[in-house]
Amino acid sequence: MLRAPGRTVVAVEGATVLGSVKMGPNHRGPGEHVANASFMVDPAHAGRGAGRALGEHVLREARADGYRAIQFNAVDETNTAAVAHWRSLEFAIVGTVPAAFRLPVGDYTGLHVMHRYLG
Amino acid sequence: MLRAPGRTVVAVEGATVLGSVKMGPNHRGPGEHVANASFMVDPAHAGRGAGRALGEHVLREARADGYRAIQFNAVDETNTAAVAHWRSLEFAIVGTVPAAFRLPVGDYTGLHVMHRYLG
Repeated sequence: MLRAPGRTVVAVEGATVLGSVKMGPNHRGPGEHVANASFMVDPAHAGRGAGRALGEHVLREARADGYRAIQFNAVDETNTAAVAHWRSLEFAIVGTVPAAFRLPVGDYTGLHVMHRYLG
Repeated sequence: MLRAPGRTVVAVEGATVLGSVKMGPNHRGPGEHVANASFMVDPAHAGRGAGRALGEHVLREARADGYRAIQFNAVDETNTAAVAHWRSLEFAIVGTVPAAFRLPVGDYTGLHVMHRYLG
């Protein structure tokens, strides 16, 4: 769990946790106007909208908190569903750190840095 | 100060601290093979080689620790000396997060994500 001003949010269905997100400033001091968030969804509960609900929640909260933008630091470039999801929410790929993510099979893939302004 | 496996290093001249760097894995788990480092040099002692010494130290240490690459997340794009310094040490600009850094005068500049492999 992040310390304040960071926060952790869970998506539940009844008593079942489907996924979670932690959010907070991406950097402190002169970078604290940009939010960061990182998500987990239980693979056993994928495809049920938990990721989308958490994503929309984070955008609302970041806007309400007065952040000027939001940035993700580690979106697996081979996770096409996630990349398409964030693109549909107006995120742009700032760049891709090569070979930064190790897949369970041992191959390395790139990690996108994704960003959007909060109007 | 970072907790292990992170570490903090200072550059000294006699009893005077000229600058410091903290380094550690940029992400945990499937991203822990990429190091991260962030530097501070006392402006009163700029131009005396502390930044270069710390940078070269970090490259040696990261290589010795077995990292496959090293990444910086926040290099002010208007800090041309720093950008040129890292380019001379074979770092590439992966991308630039727009308006992510607030200058003391209130303007916003971009932050480069920079990366190099450790052979």
